[in-house]
Amino acid sequence: MAAAAPAGEPEVIRDKAAMRAWSRRQRAEGKTVVLVPTMGFLHEGHLSLVSAAAAVPGPVAVVVSIYVNPSQFAPTEDLATYPSDLAGDLRKLASTGAVHAVFNPPDLYHRGAAVSARRAAEAPSCLDAGGDGHETWIRVERLEKGLCGASRPVFFRGVATVVAKLFNVVEPDVAMFGKKDYQQWRLICRMVRDLDFAVEIVGSEIVREADGLAMSSRNVRLSPEEREKALSISRSLVNARTAALNNSNSASEHIKDQIVQTLTEAGGRVDYVETVEQESLVPVETIDRPVVICVAAWFGKVRLIDNIEIHIQS
Amino acid sequence: MAAAAPAGEPEVIRDKAAMRAWSRRQRAEGKTVVLVPTMGFLHEGHLSLVSAAAAVPGPVAVVVSIYVNPSQFAPTEDLATYPSDLAGDLRKLASTGAVHAVFNPPDLYHRGAAVSARRAAEAPSCLDAGGDGHETWIRVERLEKGLCGASRPVFFRGVATVVAKLFNVVEPDVAMFGKKDYQQWRLICRMVRDLDFAVEIVGSEIVREADGLAMSSRNVRLSPEEREKALSISRSLVNARTAALNNSNSASEHIKDQIVQTLTEAGGRVDYVETVEQESLVPVETIDRPVVICVAAWFGKVRLIDNIEIHIQS
Repeated sequence: MAAAAPAGEPEVIRDKAAMRAWSRRQRAEGKTVVLVPTMGFLHEGHLSLVSAAAAVPGPVAVVVSIYVNPSQFAPTEDLATYPSDLAGDLRKLASTGAVHAVFNPPDLYHRGAAVSARRAAEAPSCLDAGGDGHETWIRVERLEKGLCGASRPVFFRGVATVVAKLFNVVEPDVAMFGKKDYQQWRLICRMVRDLDFAVEIVGSEIVREADGLAMSSRNVRLSPEEREKALSISRSLVNARTAALNNSNSASEHIKDQIVQTLTEAGGRVDYVETVEQESLVPVETIDRPVVICVAAWFGKVRLIDNIEIHIQS
Repeated sequence: MAAAAPAGEPEVIRDKAAMRAWSRRQRAEGKTVVLVPTMGFLHEGHLSLVSAAAAVPGPVAVVVSIYVNPSQFAPTEDLATYPSDLAGDLRKLASTGAVHAVFNPPDLYHRGAAVSARRAAEAPSCLDAGGDGHETWIRVERLEKGLCGASRPVFFRGVATVVAKLFNVVEPDVAMFGKKDYQQWRLICRMVRDLDFAVEIVGSEIVREADGLAMSSRNVRLSPEEREKALSISRSLVNARTAALNNSNSASEHIKDQIVQTLTEAGGRVDYVETVEQESLVPVETIDRPVVICVAAWFGKVRLIDNIEIHIQS
């Protein structure tokens, strides 16, 4: 951990202008402002991002944002049931002794006129309203396609836009993203490059439960049986990596078939299994260069994602 | 003019990192950084933006950016013939004594693999390439439609994106936009609101030649005859305003007919004539509230735009 004073109880900031003023004071004092963007209901994965934030060299000011972003949810998705526990989150963050501020805005968007329930159900996202409401969207046009973008067409539009807003409000020098949301991490890196944000993006390794399940706020919504079945995800990914490392030039299609079979036999419903280049996310036919295998699958009513990088040198 | 030291010969900065470092030094010295974004070939309209920038209260550091943005031009448009004169621009800016830095980057975009001439001609803009090149775009989805957006579908995508990039590189506190590009000005205000940019946008009044022609870098491409015919734009707009102020609840359609007739009789080819609300740019049927009449018309090979605000209280 860096040389900053112990953080103790983090300051909770709810107002955009106050948040920006806080960050500017920290930077004026010579600190590196490090942002950990989250949607709350924090778990060990988030706390590992906090540790990584605290470990940024030099004096740091660590800000954790907690905001469930409506624009990345389609009206058919689980915004209404997304878990939250602000009091618990604040306790966990205080216990790290590494968080200086929590940014927890009541809303981040300019809302337009309310629309009817029917129109709201047909809107692209849970944010789109009408009137003079929010209408500015950031699209990362190639990376937003495929993988999670195929079944969640407005997801990355919402993610890119809210992250840009957080960057403009918090003005961080560094921002931490978990590699569990692999496509999101790569897409944010691309947005930062293309729009010249003065923010260094750090991708942090996936944190797993002892049995291999990737940490996710959504895990709490799995029944004990579903949770057991969901272990097939990490198990199949580890087996796929072992196979790819043991056999040069494995066919992606073959790897995919084996993962699909394992997930299906366990009772999961596969959304996608794809082997793609690590930076471009372009699908590969043969595993002959650094790739990542990405999986999304449903267990009961919960959609889980996971991935594994394979560092074969081309 | 504010209390800053006379600026003299502005420093010319071509590198993004150097530009950002310069701005941060100015702000650390307590100055307000004011950006005047331009595409060069400067005229009195631009210089009025510089004067307005210098007049921002308190000590200011005025940056003029000069960059012809390829992504706002369709391949069929006039990027190749857009006029430029960097040496002349620098002389004009130095003569104001109010400009501290000129940001003149060789390129602002990450370029992908080159594409064939045929594919380039079919790309949405003069920037779109392919490979791992620029792929992040900002859309202001309602305001980008209509008016200039109807005939120039990628124009505002390019404008919003390059302005966001300039904001992220220059990190200005204030940015000046001319109201001649009325839709652009309103769209940038909306983008700033929606994405939480920490930049105050100032809209500056149209500057006209003695005979009424709105200043534009493209005016130089008019023949003397075309230039004379183009005076019909400002003349018809002033007449329309007089009519609207003299007759309560004028019909937009009637006003439009008169402007179209004047422009057509003068030998112009009308792209659009629209009376719209000043902030939302929503067309109005009756002039019973604050509106702006916007015009785009071709004279020879040159497309000119102009507008006039009518401040009727609703």
